[in-house]
Amino acid sequence: MSKLSIKAYVEALGQEARAASRHVARASTAAKNQALLLAAAALRRDQAELVAVNQSDLAKARAAGQDAAFLDRLTLSPASIASMATGLEQIASLQDPVGEVTGLVRRPSGIEVGRMRVPLGVIAIIYEARPNVTADAAGLCLKSGNACILRGGSEALGSNQVIARAMHEGLRGAGLPESVIQVLDTADRAAVGELITLKGLVDVIVPRGGKSLIERISNDARIPVIKHLDGVCHTYIDASADVAMAVRVADNAKTQRYGTCNTMETLLVHEAIAPAVLPLLCALYREKGVELRGDAAVQRLIGGIQPATEADWYAEYLAPILAIRVVPSLDAALDHIAHYGSQHTDAIITNDWNHANRFLREVDSSSVMVNTSTRFADGFEYGLGAEIGISTDKLHARGPVGLEGLTNQKFVVLGNGQIRGG
Amino acid sequence: MSKLSIKAYVEALGQEARAASRHVARASTAAKNQALLLAAAALRRDQAELVAVNQSDLAKARAAGQDAAFLDRLTLSPASIASMATGLEQIASLQDPVGEVTGLVRRPSGIEVGRMRVPLGVIAIIYEARPNVTADAAGLCLKSGNACILRGGSEALGSNQVIARAMHEGLRGAGLPESVIQVLDTADRAAVGELITLKGLVDVIVPRGGKSLIERISNDARIPVIKHLDGVCHTYIDASADVAMAVRVADNAKTQRYGTCNTMETLLVHEAIAPAVLPLLCALYREKGVELRGDAAVQRLIGGIQPATEADWYAEYLAPILAIRVVPSLDAALDHIAHYGSQHTDAIITNDWNHANRFLREVDSSSVMVNTSTRFADGFEYGLGAEIGISTDKLHARGPVGLEGLTNQKFVVLGNGQIRGG
Repeated sequence: MSKLSIKAYVEALGQEARAASRHVARASTAAKNQALLLAAAALRRDQAELVAVNQSDLAKARAAGQDAAFLDRLTLSPASIASMATGLEQIASLQDPVGEVTGLVRRPSGIEVGRMRVPLGVIAIIYEARPNVTADAAGLCLKSGNACILRGGSEALGSNQVIARAMHEGLRGAGLPESVIQVLDTADRAAVGELITLKGLVDVIVPRGGKSLIERISNDARIPVIKHLDGVCHTYIDASADVAMAVRVADNAKTQRYGTCNTMETLLVHEAIAPAVLPLLCALYREKGVELRGDAAVQRLIGGIQPATEADWYAEYLAPILAIRVVPSLDAALDHIAHYGSQHTDAIITNDWNHANRFLREVDSSSVMVNTSTRFADGFEYGLGAEIGISTDKLHARGPVGLEGLTNQKFVVLGNGQIRGG
Repeated sequence: MSKLSIKAYVEALGQEARAASRHVARASTAAKNQALLLAAAALRRDQAELVAVNQSDLAKARAAGQDAAFLDRLTLSPASIASMATGLEQIASLQDPVGEVTGLVRRPSGIEVGRMRVPLGVIAIIYEARPNVTADAAGLCLKSGNACILRGGSEALGSNQVIARAMHEGLRGAGLPESVIQVLDTADRAAVGELITLKGLVDVIVPRGGKSLIERISNDARIPVIKHLDGVCHTYIDASADVAMAVRVADNAKTQRYGTCNTMETLLVHEAIAPAVLPLLCALYREKGVELRGDAAVQRLIGGIQPATEADWYAEYLAPILAIRVVPSLDAALDHIAHYGSQHTDAIITNDWNHANRFLREVDSSSVMVNTSTRFADGFEYGLGAEIGISTDKLHARGPVGLEGLTNQKFVVLGNGQIRGG
């Protein structure tokens, strides 16, 4: 397609999504759930076809020289398709957030004022060649009453089209317009540029993927973006911490999984407890093959530690590497997190009530924890049921974003003829 | 100042604001209230000086050929200074939103997950030459635990500096850093361009003023903006409405004040009730000098009505002019509002339960009303205590934005040693 026709194509998608958003916003919970369950059934039924189309996507990606990690994310198996279908069924079982009215109070004028939870409108989701995201993101948008435009990595286009067909079958079966869920059907990257500047047609962008993708999209977008860039998560072991608990939690925060955004990347330890805790903990880390980088105090306590550079305090390794710093006080730990942190998830291990409270109040991150592992920062673990991503933004949703984060509240005002100044 | 030194100056302000935001975020309610009350007392004490400085601002603005409305907004009197001080005292009496923890639940893993209300960080407020906004905006930011950078119209710079001095006296007296409230101390417009692109130092921009100011700022900003552009507010009189109520409410919505953003600009009337309601209502409007513009059906019912053009349905007159359209159904009214509305405030007058519910659910505006006047869309009327503005955005705050809209919620997670997968 030419640049001009790409623009016209994306605009037409946006217009259709805008129109569809009014339909899905007023759809009943029963209709939305029916669409989700029918789509799940279609995915299970068309499993063999989806695997075959995915194999052809994989062959092209392999021929284009994509690496093993890339091919792994692109691959669909009968098991992963079943889990996609189960995911849709689980979304159907979640409570519908739309229409909830809260805080209705009578004002002196006689009007009643409250807030009603409503969909955002049209959500554009931009992600990498991971076809399982297609069903997941479409399902969350549908349940929250939003229309969506999906743009996955072009290498997954064939697989995404088959998944979209199943979603459309669900929508049709529930009497909802297919344009509630649209897949951007071109490999042309210019289409993304058009999509993220469709002011008035798209209400919010959710980018999912690596930092460079998210950075590019949030720099170029002319529409609000829900996102997180980095997960430089800290655990601070306070002087009063229980040593056994500190070792157990700090081990889990680093080693339970290395590649996730809620994995601890920097460990801060109070100088009074460092001699008790660091030898035990570093032995554990080394046993598991974690490369340790420390400041001078850590190097004095533990032999053979590589020195940490300034860049290490900013690093999101997503790998078995850990930066460790000894600090003289809670305030020094708070300063370190304020300066180097990414406002994702930070935890304190302490037995001091006042320190726990200060940490909870003063650390300006989307999740702040006491005496537990940063690895818990997750929509399922928090009870949101599912998440479309994690936000480290200051406005709207902070932390794991589930159905509620895909909605907002408007004011509703009920009267019986009141007039102002009357 | 040169372009380069303007950039350095604004960046330095941003750095100071960022540092100050950590202090004010953890400030006690008592300290914030003390600062507000001391500032109010300083304003009352320095009233004569403030009036004199304001007179000199006015003389310059008059010499520069500013019109009467402009000079009126710029003018401070002993009465308006007293009301500024009272405003600060009222903000002190509002409940502190910061630190509230809600929804704390125990999860199957044993962790407890809830949300804590926290300040946004650094708020930049850009407004016209209305010095009363300076005290008001600074007070709301302070009470909500935010640092702020204020940039009022350059014609009010002298007055704003005196008001800022009173605010600083309050902050000092309460042991808080003066840099919690900073006034951009240059008339150079380039400073605004720098301020609205200070990523990482400013968290949110609140523009207050005319549409052109807000449009320019939201186009150029690289930081989230809380705003509304238009208030094209509708009242729809349904077939089942009580005629006397419809007349009373639609009269109030248009004529109580003409220049406010929550004033009705378009009246929609169901065709079945139009013959009963329009003659009464139009006679009232004409008595008050409101110019009426109607579609063909309105023209048939009421003599001497000017035809409404397509542009009238989009118009925010902010003047004694009203566009009137007769519609065949609730759906036609909903379509009109979806197409021409500005998502600000819309009302239905009806006695039909189902129509009231559909209107409340389906109109995608920041305030949606049944049987009352759009003029009620206001922070004080809603019980927010005060407002920094009205938002028609889809994310974060919708409708009147008070202290709560200047905060957000982060997740807090409390454990006693839980680990993931453990």
